[in-house]
Amino acid sequence: MTLAETSALQFKVADLSLAEAGRHQLRLAENEMPGLMALREEFGAAKPLAGARIAGSLHMTVQTAVLIETLVALGAQVRWASCNIFSTQDEAAAAVAVGPDGTPEHPAGVPVFAWKGETLEEYWWCTDRIFDWSDEAAAAGAEWIGPNMILDDGGDATLLVHDGRSFELAGSVPATAADASHEYRVVLDTLRRSLEASPDRWTRIADELKGVTEETTTGVHRLYELHAKGELRFPAINVNDSVTKSKFDNKYGIRHSLPDGLNRATDVLIGGKVAFVAGYGDVGKGAAEALRGQGARVIVSEVDPINALQAAMDGYQVARLESVIGDIDILVTGTGNKDVVRLEHILGLKHLAVIANVGHFDNEIDMAALETLEGAEKVEIKPQVHEWRLPTGRSVLVLSEGRLMNLGNATGHPSFVMSNSFTNQVLAQIELWTRPEEYPVGVYVLPKHLDEKVARLHLDALGVELTVLTPEQAAYIGVPVEGPYKVDHYRY
Amino acid sequence: MTLAETSALQFKVADLSLAEAGRHQLRLAENEMPGLMALREEFGAAKPLAGARIAGSLHMTVQTAVLIETLVALGAQVRWASCNIFSTQDEAAAAVAVGPDGTPEHPAGVPVFAWKGETLEEYWWCTDRIFDWSDEAAAAGAEWIGPNMILDDGGDATLLVHDGRSFELAGSVPATAADASHEYRVVLDTLRRSLEASPDRWTRIADELKGVTEETTTGVHRLYELHAKGELRFPAINVNDSVTKSKFDNKYGIRHSLPDGLNRATDVLIGGKVAFVAGYGDVGKGAAEALRGQGARVIVSEVDPINALQAAMDGYQVARLESVIGDIDILVTGTGNKDVVRLEHILGLKHLAVIANVGHFDNEIDMAALETLEGAEKVEIKPQVHEWRLPTGRSVLVLSEGRLMNLGNATGHPSFVMSNSFTNQVLAQIELWTRPEEYPVGVYVLPKHLDEKVARLHLDALGVELTVLTPEQAAYIGVPVEGPYKVDHYRY
Amino acid sequence: MTLAETSALQFKVADLSLAEAGRHQLRLAENEMPGLMALREEFGAAKPLAGARIAGSLHMTVQTAVLIETLVALGAQVRWASCNIFSTQDEAAAAVAVGPDGTPEHPAGVPVFAWKGETLEEYWWCTDRIFDWSDEAAAAGAEWIGPNMILDDGGDATLLVHDGRSFELAGSVPATAADASHEYRVVLDTLRRSLEASPDRWTRIADELKGVTEETTTGVHRLYELHAKGELRFPAINVNDSVTKSKFDNKYGIRHSLPDGLNRATDVLIGGKVAFVAGYGDVGKGAAEALRGQGARVIVSEVDPINALQAAMDGYQVARLESVIGDIDILVTGTGNKDVVRLEHILGLKHLAVIANVGHFDNEIDMAALETLEGAEKVEIKPQVHEWRLPTGRSVLVLSEGRLMNLGNATGHPSFVMSNSFTNQVLAQIELWTRPEEYPVGVYVLPKHLDEKVARLHLDALGVELTVLTPEQAAYIGVPVEGPYKVDHYRY
Amino acid sequence: MTLAETSALQFKVADLSLAEAGRHQLRLAENEMPGLMALREEFGAAKPLAGARIAGSLHMTVQTAVLIETLVALGAQVRWASCNIFSTQDEAAAAVAVGPDGTPEHPAGVPVFAWKGETLEEYWWCTDRIFDWSDEAAAAGAEWIGPNMILDDGGDATLLVHDGRSFELAGSVPATAADASHEYRVVLDTLRRSLEASPDRWTRIADELKGVTEETTTGVHRLYELHAKGELRFPAINVNDSVTKSKFDNKYGIRHSLPDGLNRATDVLIGGKVAFVAGYGDVGKGAAEALRGQGARVIVSEVDPINALQAAMDGYQVARLESVIGDIDILVTGTGNKDVVRLEHILGLKHLAVIANVGHFDNEIDMAALETLEGAEKVEIKPQVHEWRLPTGRSVLVLSEGRLMNLGNATGHPSFVMSNSFTNQVLAQIELWTRPEEYPVGVYVLPKHLDEKVARLHLDALGVELTVLTPEQAAYIGVPVEGPYKVDHYRY
Repeated sequence: MTLAETSALQFKVADLSLAEAGRHQLRLAENEMPGLMALREEFGAAKPLAGARIAGSLHMTVQTAVLIETLVALGAQVRWASCNIFSTQDEAAAAVAVGPDGTPEHPAGVPVFAWKGETLEEYWWCTDRIFDWSDEAAAAGAEWIGPNMILDDGGDATLLVHDGRSFELAGSVPATAADASHEYRVVLDTLRRSLEASPDRWTRIADELKGVTEETTTGVHRLYELHAKGELRFPAINVNDSVTKSKFDNKYGIRHSLPDGLNRATDVLIGGKVAFVAGYGDVGKGAAEALRGQGARVIVSEVDPINALQAAMDGYQVARLESVIGDIDILVTGTGNKDVVRLEHILGLKHLAVIANVGHFDNEIDMAALETLEGAEKVEIKPQVHEWRLPTGRSVLVLSEGRLMNLGNATGHPSFVMSNSFTNQVLAQIELWTRPEEYPVGVYVLPKHLDEKVARLHLDALGVELTVLTPEQAAYIGVPVEGPYKVDHYRY
Repeated sequence: MTLAETSALQFKVADLSLAEAGRHQLRLAENEMPGLMALREEFGAAKPLAGARIAGSLHMTVQTAVLIETLVALGAQVRWASCNIFSTQDEAAAAVAVGPDGTPEHPAGVPVFAWKGETLEEYWWCTDRIFDWSDEAAAAGAEWIGPNMILDDGGDATLLVHDGRSFELAGSVPATAADASHEYRVVLDTLRRSLEASPDRWTRIADELKGVTEETTTGVHRLYELHAKGELRFPAINVNDSVTKSKFDNKYGIRHSLPDGLNRATDVLIGGKVAFVAGYGDVGKGAAEALRGQGARVIVSEVDPINALQAAMDGYQVARLESVIGDIDILVTGTGNKDVVRLEHILGLKHLAVIANVGHFDNEIDMAALETLEGAEKVEIKPQVHEWRLPTGRSVLVLSEGRLMNLGNATGHPSFVMSNSFTNQVLAQIELWTRPEEYPVGVYVLPKHLDEKVARLHLDALGVELTVLTPEQAAYIGVPVEGPYKVDHYRY
Repeated sequence: MTLAETSALQFKVADLSLAEAGRHQLRLAENEMPGLMALREEFGAAKPLAGARIAGSLHMTVQTAVLIETLVALGAQVRWASCNIFSTQDEAAAAVAVGPDGTPEHPAGVPVFAWKGETLEEYWWCTDRIFDWSDEAAAAGAEWIGPNMILDDGGDATLLVHDGRSFELAGSVPATAADASHEYRVVLDTLRRSLEASPDRWTRIADELKGVTEETTTGVHRLYELHAKGELRFPAINVNDSVTKSKFDNKYGIRHSLPDGLNRATDVLIGGKVAFVAGYGDVGKGAAEALRGQGARVIVSEVDPINALQAAMDGYQVARLESVIGDIDILVTGTGNKDVVRLEHILGLKHLAVIANVGHFDNEIDMAALETLEGAEKVEIKPQVHEWRLPTGRSVLVLSEGRLMNLGNATGHPSFVMSNSFTNQVLAQIELWTRPEEYPVGVYVLPKHLDEKVARLHLDALGVELTVLTPEQAAYIGVPVEGPYKVDHYRY
Repeated sequence: MTLAETSALQFKVADLSLAEAGRHQLRLAENEMPGLMALREEFGAAKPLAGARIAGSLHMTVQTAVLIETLVALGAQVRWASCNIFSTQDEAAAAVAVGPDGTPEHPAGVPVFAWKGETLEEYWWCTDRIFDWSDEAAAAGAEWIGPNMILDDGGDATLLVHDGRSFELAGSVPATAADASHEYRVVLDTLRRSLEASPDRWTRIADELKGVTEETTTGVHRLYELHAKGELRFPAINVNDSVTKSKFDNKYGIRHSLPDGLNRATDVLIGGKVAFVAGYGDVGKGAAEALRGQGARVIVSEVDPINALQAAMDGYQVARLESVIGDIDILVTGTGNKDVVRLEHILGLKHLAVIANVGHFDNEIDMAALETLEGAEKVEIKPQVHEWRLPTGRSVLVLSEGRLMNLGNATGHPSFVMSNSFTNQVLAQIELWTRPEEYPVGVYVLPKHLDEKVARLHLDALGVELTVLTPEQAAYIGVPVEGPYKVDHYRY
């Protein structure tokens, strides 16, 4: 099979138009991703990632395309899959697959295995393919090579390696449990096929891997668990908890995309309305600020008394959802918990109130109860916008079927926000690849001076002038002139 | 010709699906237009507009559909055209044409002459048709009847009557001047056809008309000019200058739709960016508030020292565009003047800065100079979003070809805002129709108690509790308990 | 009597220290009153007020001192009294009386009749003295001269002239009615003494007067009433309704002085508290913005549905006081009406809730009912701050005895705000004095170009760059390049 | 000596009036310190601090008085000194010394050694006295007892014990170095006197002490240093880094007291002015928010790129001081560093610009350079407000001589803010006293569940309704229903 043939995307790209459209968008996105572009500038000649073979599993969007091309510019070889069956932007995938100078027939880009609307079977096939470097081996005249780095979002790539290896050690994939989820059945089938083809493929891959950098809370959680059980096979950097990731991505990303999604979905005036925000973490803080900035009256709920006190000190009414349910026009949930909006709440809302989840899974809202409610009727207003007519005679508007509406009704985090996250990713890849002696197997956050560097690379684009400490001032407060400037527990 | 045949829209409506989609949207919009719905409640039985035959010329949107059905609910007969060739939402037109209970074959709705993307010839033919009440005459067994009220937006309907009548008096339509605009040629041709068919049609219509209610600054300006020249033929109510129109529509409408349009057009993060707002009238105030609410740093320009001082007191930097041009990421113009953004400004902007007009015509930005600039190249990113590559090597993003981006890239004012404007329209129609003795030929603003009534009808939907004066308190400040509460020059 | 002797203030000034302290404050205030200083610059050489003899009655504060010295710099002669028995700042009065170069023995300043804490008898004696120009007559070698202009705040000076003249025409001051207020008794006594000394003094003065410029709502109201009854004797300019007075003074003045007064009075944290603002006119808008800016949750009440809708659109909860009384920590009233806070409200407040009036008279709060409430006890915490222990077992904190707490607990409007108001005053004096032909007897607002000029003179101090229209742009929107820019009913 | 005689305060209290005034203020403060009052409620019966003898060294203000009486209510015996020579509020000291039911002759309160305006000699004598429990020993019939707990602010009390003990071990106090500061000379003299009187007093005290709870950054820094050197003698709880201390105290405290101090000092309108805030930590965040909330245009400077990016994302211009020096009306410094405002900055400011330090020491502003500047003149406008006339012909206004103006020109943190800090203090005292086994010698932050408890105790007073997790929800996110809810590195 040739390089061109390995790219699943080619079957989707009949001509250059999709890739060209993607290329336009990449160029616009590059202007909004100054951190990544600065890394190309700084490291493009030195190529610190030379020799790195990265298996990437992260939403195949325009912003990720800029990330991928940055990794390549720094010397890495890359294979890529999306980490979600719906999140691929086909034009971005096409642009990356074809490459800046290639054609669909002779792509010069990165093998990409992702398209919008994969089945679960296709999804795990794609994920499997980022670990199959036989084309690269052939090109290099080697018998076999595997990836030596993972860039992960949610931990699916890391899971496949760990499970694959442990089944290989056990000699076989266990029988699928009767109550296994559909997805886990597919995972097991995928690994069964792999073990049939090679009994030690994952063991070889695991041995080869120098590390993984992980993007999300969920993925990080899995890594800490693996490590706690002594099963983690290679070092991991937790990119999620960089300040320039967690404090920026959640707060400023949601501040942007919540009203964007509400507008695209409903065109309802936000000003003057009563908006309720469940949760006053970073997501809730960004949501509340955005809604107030549009002239809504915002009420917040919290379970953590510290965050509740912050909300009060920021001038918001803090109330339980059930106390004010009948006043709410726009109900936003950003908790990461489940059953935050329950059936009794839904039934108590004003007619045509909007329900929007910017938290985590769709179980933040008890969609299951709504879907089985006798006498309820679901009417599609447009894709991702449904009116649920309730037995009370009132209706509610549910966005994105209760899933993340900033993804479903808007376009997710804007490029500038992702530039912060992805600059952390690239620096983390460089750390693990170039300084392995500093990172024995374990889970690490990025050192503070690199976190500060990420911020630093985004200042010029915003016209920010940074003040420089004199040596005397630096000595006076006991920090190096060039940073890092804060103790680890500083809260920003 | 049957009623069904007179509806231009029928040719566009092959089946019920378009009308059904429109009907869904109407139902949602009704929930956001409490003023209109309250008027149906209050006046639905009394039908104060019984006998009124309204020729309506106003953007044929979902919100206008709610307006039209309100007029009908109050007893009026209505014929409708759009006042702009692009602004019709076909599903709204279809829903109104078919009516709540009709079918395309047997419509029970209002004759609507409007579709998205009319030619100028079609546009003026449509406008002519709202004055042709022969179907209604036939249905009533009358030889001839004309409309007796106009509801106008921009003054095109009013223009046709006045020009038609004056040409009839002169005996013929004058020859078209060599330098006449394409549009005025079409107007003259339209009137020529009319005079050929009937030498006194507009004279009869003008005699029949009891008044016009006008929505916009431009239309109001024309009315005052006509009246100043002694040529106005019937009384006019200036709906534009109701407080609940001008202070609400501009400020809160733009606050909503400016960020909406920016997001849909570019997906660029607004937070942290430098945004420049030209003009700090109501539009500029709304724009600046919206951008600050998203975390942008906002700089304002003004020519009026009072508004400039207001901007400063609201915490904005006030500067000339040329002083800060190189710092700007997002350039918004909301002045209603021309040549506000000139070529030298465009050439001085940052790479990929966004240019957005929320003011008035496309000449706020000197698009003509840009279009003829040697070495400039226009690349369509997507509809209504163009990258202009400049000879400087930089680019700018121009939204909606320099025209109103809140219409072109977003969806215009939301229903709640339009509910305020249109409630003024309906009350103005009732005033002119039911109390003609109060309105000799002239141009009037709506009495303050009706302006207050418009606001009053929108409070419940927002959960606002209004405080009621005691008779003693009312006497103390010298106002009636039920209002009006303010002197005419009160500035709100 | 010498000039020195006529200055009541000299009796209060034992040495130069008071005047020197005042002089320091004047210098600081001048820096914050750029409008007045610009007028000195512009008109200091031409002296347009030469020949004007101004009788001034306005709070004798540091800011007024800058006003007085501006009038003098423009050529006027001036005599001054305060318009309130408590509002004089003695050091300001001393500084003005002594003058920049004088001594208490040989004052080179303006005769000032004002000190902090006058009795009503002293107050009206002082007001009478600003009409007694015998010293100036003596200095000029004239037999008699009177003032020819009034600068008034509240209308007391204007009242004295009109009542004095009409009693002279009647031949005597009428007997004091049994139920006359203490203050009106004093007025009548004052006029009785005047008629005894001269039977035609006020008639001569009234004939001499070329006009009055009036600062306040109350005074303007009296002027319109006088004019409506045909009794007004000279033209009046209503300074109160200049945009740069009413929209600035109320909104931005209160935004500043409300939290200032709350802090000085109570030191209670505003952040996180529930604050209620009665009234959403300019005062209420400024109050609400200030409290939100400090992190309070703000609830607003309104009787006017338009203002209520504005409050909702600005994101505030709008409720009746009685609906939320038990949640309120800080209760602010800014309505200008009476009985806004009634006993049932006071009894329903939280323990130690603060009650602050920034509206008008102390009857906004039903202090009379509180003072006669059985079982209530008043405890002075410090001057102008009283705890009222209620029969409920709870207490409330009443500021400034229910009177204007921005005056009683803070220091009133800051200099920059007063510079706007007083620049209007000076321009109004120049208008009436230099263009009497334009102002027949009647009540006028200042022409818009002068209102704009007031704003213009305050821009440089704030670093505001004003944009200048090109002649083409001015023509396009139909205004002169140099303004005025707006129609009269424009609402800003 | 009797208990009454040991109270230094008695010499200041001629009659009950001072104590009575203080008692009024205590009562008002108690209403604003719900955390402390809730602890009295919760623990008043159990008296967990029974047996604790606390030597307290912390600003003797009204708020501290509420803290002291809370400690007593929980069973502790207490002796108190201030930790600053100027910060005592005499009426608060008097109220505490006299006690709720005592008289100056027969005080029933706490021995307090503090008055406003101590000399350094007096200050260290006072600090020494909180370790002299001979009265209590006499009352208990014991030969000797010492304190067994310290509650410290800045570490002076802790210093005295550690230095005293180490000099005792060495056998004598070392000779004072020639270049020793005045204050350290006084410390050495104080210890010399102590060693003369008893050669092992501090050794006994150190042995007795079960722990210290420390309020400030500075004190905490000293503790970590001591511990790093192995010299710490007893466990310490770092109260400063509780979330409810550091994030609340700095941000919300400064938001309140910065504008308060500016207003009391200068009465200058903040709205419309250009304000510069050096530093965007918690202090800078609060300062910027307060100034924006008053309508100022705020420019921020930062050395840390993360904080700089936060400032930009919050919509502030971020610039170096020297870049914008000529535009600034109000210059605020909140960095905790030195030489932030240097002479070249001061000379470049606008005439009468205000300089305000809310950071740390007076060396944030180079006052030394200003004081020795040839041709500069210092004029006192009023206490704590000085005009410095510069050789440039311009002046600047320096508040509080360059020291903390929120203390010098305003009244420091309001009670509600201090209630958070002090509730942490009390919980920390209970921890160390009742669970010594959990705290071997070392420096600890308060466990998160207690930090959350502090917040929890302040919610009711603000009307905050806290949402309660269901057991299922708690399990889902892996936290106990009752908290703690967050990982240690969560940034709030």
